[in-house]
Amino acid sequence: MDKRGWYTEEWAGAGAAISLKVTEKVHDEQSPYQRIEIYETETFGTLMTLDGLVMVTDRDNFIYHEMMSHPALFTHHKPRRVLIIGGGDCGTLREVLRHDAILEVDQVEIDERVTRVSEQFFPELCSANADPRARLHFADGIQWTKESSPGHYDVIIVDSTDPVGPAAGLFSASFYADCYRALNAGGILVGQSESPLFHADLIKGMHGGLRGANFLDIATLFFPQCTYPSGWWSATMAAKDRALSNFREEDVENRRFPTRYYNHGIHHGALAVPEFLFKTLM
Amino acid sequence: MDKRGWYTEEWAGAGAAISLKVTEKVHDEQSPYQRIEIYETETFGTLMTLDGLVMVTDRDNFIYHEMMSHPALFTHHKPRRVLIIGGGDCGTLREVLRHDAILEVDQVEIDERVTRVSEQFFPELCSANADPRARLHFADGIQWTKESSPGHYDVIIVDSTDPVGPAAGLFSASFYADCYRALNAGGILVGQSESPLFHADLIKGMHGGLRGANFLDIATLFFPQCTYPSGWWSATMAAKDRALSNFREEDVENRRFPTRYYNHGIHHGALAVPEFLFKTLM
Repeated sequence: MDKRGWYTEEWAGAGAAISLKVTEKVHDEQSPYQRIEIYETETFGTLMTLDGLVMVTDRDNFIYHEMMSHPALFTHHKPRRVLIIGGGDCGTLREVLRHDAILEVDQVEIDERVTRVSEQFFPELCSANADPRARLHFADGIQWTKESSPGHYDVIIVDSTDPVGPAAGLFSASFYADCYRALNAGGILVGQSESPLFHADLIKGMHGGLRGANFLDIATLFFPQCTYPSGWWSATMAAKDRALSNFREEDVENRRFPTRYYNHGIHHGALAVPEFLFKTLM
Repeated sequence: MDKRGWYTEEWAGAGAAISLKVTEKVHDEQSPYQRIEIYETETFGTLMTLDGLVMVTDRDNFIYHEMMSHPALFTHHKPRRVLIIGGGDCGTLREVLRHDAILEVDQVEIDERVTRVSEQFFPELCSANADPRARLHFADGIQWTKESSPGHYDVIIVDSTDPVGPAAGLFSASFYADCYRALNAGGILVGQSESPLFHADLIKGMHGGLRGANFLDIATLFFPQCTYPSGWWSATMAAKDRALSNFREEDVENRRFPTRYYNHGIHHGALAVPEFLFKTLM
């Protein structure tokens, strides 16, 4: 936060930055893994940063959390067991638990402090934490996946930070292979895959890594995300043994829970590949 | 530009700002209408600002210019005469002239200096300015539209600055009525309509104004635009006498010119309405 009351994140390597007007810094701690800071902003509600990078704001997190969960869950024919790697703010967990078929969700976040701080400052994102189907583990997601029983999960969601430091392993070939093994028949993996404008090479590498791990179909979802680098973000899905172009459209239309961004048309539209990425990804 | 070499635009009323790392300021003038500044940036190429607001950068203008032109032109059954209001950087004009059927384009930009400066600093955007079908007029677009022969144009594109100052009239009921009259049967109007996240009320007002001017169908296109407020932008189309959900899909697939963002899937996807805007716009 500068003297004029602005929080600024310089987008790494992008020669660009976003700033949010802050009214107050309300929390600052160094956890064993990272620095966790909470600000109240003038127009984006509460803001959480990890090591100085924007993770979540009240105002725009709905797009990210809905797109990390509903497309994959409505593509799976009947998702019962879900693994979330990361996801410490619990916004993705909340969206996952809106699906009636879900029996259990293992959330494996390495830093318990992120979740405890989120419970304090983002209570609405954590409103499903007490759901009996939710199991919050504070452990290494890479290790957890490696040790999972083969075929245990229907959907794996990698809701991670950027692919540097502890999260780098979540973009590796061996992790993808472990995910493939941990998924049941019909299983789907989805992971956040950075900015289409700034990180096309990462998205391309992810497609290659997932193909190398024997996933049958791979597709990237594109969506706006104001406070993430470039304001444009993506999540990449991989299906063990089916095509990702079909999803349970009727169930989307008839869903009995609220969404603010996601719907049937948005799901279709998010799968459209911008021309400049077409040759890269297809 | 601050002492550390950053250009910053504070997004009006949004409590947020974007910054680009600048290597050099290469032009600065006060035209009769506005202050025109040109910067070289570290990673976004050349940047033009008008009265301190980002208008165009080399790196990301392709999305905006393609979405302001191709969806409307591929929705019209055979666009021959096009009117562009504003559009002084000439990037939209270039995209329009890629369509073979076009016979003439009147571009009516109020500030000749914007175009002259663009010719100097954005030569690739101005590469179609010498096309014999292009007619560059430097005049008031509101007046021009009012005085146009009824039914003269097939497509009208409002490529304007924000709805303050001289551009405010481009969002008015009387301007929409003049556009309706200036359009031929089958005619389509498209105008930039700001950020879905920050300016939903403006988009709603535009739909109401266009309905009030007797347009039969109205539809908003959503697309990322990194350097515009919120990184998420929109353009709103209005059709005189037809539905906007259909477009010449085969012609899009068989187009003989390059695009970098737009394609058949992107056109469909851009028409998907985010859930939080659904009740507002439908």
